[in-house]
Amino acid sequence: MLSRLRDAIVAPAVNADAGARRHLDQLTKPPGSLGRLEEIAARLASVRGRAPRVEHPVIFVFAADHGVVGEGVSAYPQIVTTQMVENFLAGGAAINVLARQAGARVIVADFGIAGPIPRSRGLVDCAIARGTANMARGPAMTTAQAIAAVERGAALAEAAIDQGADLLITGEMGIGNTTAASAITAAVTGADPNVVTGRGTGVDAAAWARKVDVVRRTLTVNQPDRADGLDVLKRVGGFEIAGLVGVILAGAAHRVPVVLDGFIAGAAALIATTLAPDARHTLFASHRSAEPGHAVALAHLGLEPYLDLGLRLGEGTGGALFIHLARAAALIYSEMATFKSAGVTGPAEP
Amino acid sequence: MLSRLRDAIVAPAVNADAGARRHLDQLTKPPGSLGRLEEIAARLASVRGRAPRVEHPVIFVFAADHGVVGEGVSAYPQIVTTQMVENFLAGGAAINVLARQAGARVIVADFGIAGPIPRSRGLVDCAIARGTANMARGPAMTTAQAIAAVERGAALAEAAIDQGADLLITGEMGIGNTTAASAITAAVTGADPNVVTGRGTGVDAAAWARKVDVVRRTLTVNQPDRADGLDVLKRVGGFEIAGLVGVILAGAAHRVPVVLDGFIAGAAALIATTLAPDARHTLFASHRSAEPGHAVALAHLGLEPYLDLGLRLGEGTGGALFIHLARAAALIYSEMATFKSAGVTGPAEP
Repeated sequence: MLSRLRDAIVAPAVNADAGARRHLDQLTKPPGSLGRLEEIAARLASVRGRAPRVEHPVIFVFAADHGVVGEGVSAYPQIVTTQMVENFLAGGAAINVLARQAGARVIVADFGIAGPIPRSRGLVDCAIARGTANMARGPAMTTAQAIAAVERGAALAEAAIDQGADLLITGEMGIGNTTAASAITAAVTGADPNVVTGRGTGVDAAAWARKVDVVRRTLTVNQPDRADGLDVLKRVGGFEIAGLVGVILAGAAHRVPVVLDGFIAGAAALIATTLAPDARHTLFASHRSAEPGHAVALAHLGLEPYLDLGLRLGEGTGGALFIHLARAAALIYSEMATFKSAGVTGPAEP
Repeated sequence: MLSRLRDAIVAPAVNADAGARRHLDQLTKPPGSLGRLEEIAARLASVRGRAPRVEHPVIFVFAADHGVVGEGVSAYPQIVTTQMVENFLAGGAAINVLARQAGARVIVADFGIAGPIPRSRGLVDCAIARGTANMARGPAMTTAQAIAAVERGAALAEAAIDQGADLLITGEMGIGNTTAASAITAAVTGADPNVVTGRGTGVDAAAWARKVDVVRRTLTVNQPDRADGLDVLKRVGGFEIAGLVGVILAGAAHRVPVVLDGFIAGAAALIATTLAPDARHTLFASHRSAEPGHAVALAHLGLEPYLDLGLRLGEGTGGALFIHLARAAALIYSEMATFKSAGVTGPAEP
């Protein structure tokens, strides 16, 4: 399945957005005056190969635990992963509120939560194991586990696409996962751990220094091969991150735009684009996270975020806010009058 | 009426947002992790004096013409003001599309369009005259006209507030109005015309130089008194800008948050806060416009915009996009579970 997806991912044709840009210039506004909204519309058209549309956005909230929490890298105890998943299922978390507002479906999946959790109707079971191994002492998972997690994520995305999803949003929950994202970002981009490691849920200065040290030790112990996305994923990744890699690859293979949330999603994108470089064209960076490593990941991906609101929650919250911008771009494209249809005089020829 | 509004505008109490911030910190997320969304929620609460709510946003699109177009400052002929108002009434303009998406009511008002326009059901008649006089040669309007336009704008806003409006968005249309906004911004902030004058709807370099020269001449001829908002408005303003001053003052007087769109709205805010400095607390800068003078106006107002998408259309389009962020903030505030209600463990004590 992974090979099939990788083979299906190709770059859009040169000038794939030319038709869309021509259409945008005929609408009743000075050319280019809607700025990056026009860029979003043109990019959506380019990915899809037809007019932009944002009618059925789906937010994937993948949850898993991380063995590295044993090193004291988080301000919250591991049980919070389980508790927050219950909160997602009850509809009380930030992502639930923002998804309802944006008219988006939320798919909550267990990719490997440590604590016991009741199998409720709302929770999709993709669990690989009860959390990763402690990556500060060895690989976070086996290669087989990494592939399985990617493929389960991709399968969920393909099922959603079959049901009409036209925008895929990457969300996650996992106490300790900013540490994994820092390790991935350092491994793939070559940046120093102290540049890509942040405060996560809010650790203090001493705990931050410890976290940097843990990331450094993780890289020394594992020696991930930056040219091999699966190797990086298996050694310093997480199950929910692997699942998001699958969502990205499935979106790219099926030409359905994928919206990255923040730092964790950015790390998943670094893995996905190592596996299939042309997946990059499918990606929209919803926002710039307050996590310092996120800017490093986005620069490596060549993506410029659309929102900059100091978010650092994850769950897909920045991605959910971006849905409004993507939908605005699609509606502008399809609903605005043209100069001709509205009988409005165009700009004077210079 | 103007005196009544000015007298009613007071600064919020010190720490007016303390209760809102306490509530936000009890929600199931690390404190502060929703960044500027939390800032919006707290500011909405502070302005309103109660929980934030964005259920009935109203976008005011005020249109008028500008005598200064006789100096060749725009890429479009003056008739486009009339044509675009017809486009607004037919629902085909960008602001119509974005307002529908955001569930906002649009009020289109003629504050002084030059061309004849059919009195249709949708158009509110607030016309002061058939466009301003050419401000490059003398005052744009009389003091009585300036006051009348402000009061008509305020009356529309008060009527909307009476009907339940909980967010007021400032939009406008008027060929030539970036020239007036540049003159106002230069007059009030003291910035040089070449810093606050931009390309507007898209003039070329030669036309831009001419536009800077027109702004400079306008200020020399009129010598507006920067300490007197009405004097600036009358000499170098516009009727639609005056109407927006009224909307801002009415919002501030009634503690209903006011969202500024771009450069023209920023110029109206400079006038409004000269008339009533505490009106500033009511204002939300939706976005940073591509017009260079906008950043100067925002810095003078002490406002940091929430979106930065390179928009330069006006009409209220950036304000309409901001509605989604304001609503997200209000819904987060009112719909999210607390740590206690969801049974989620809080952060470890440091």
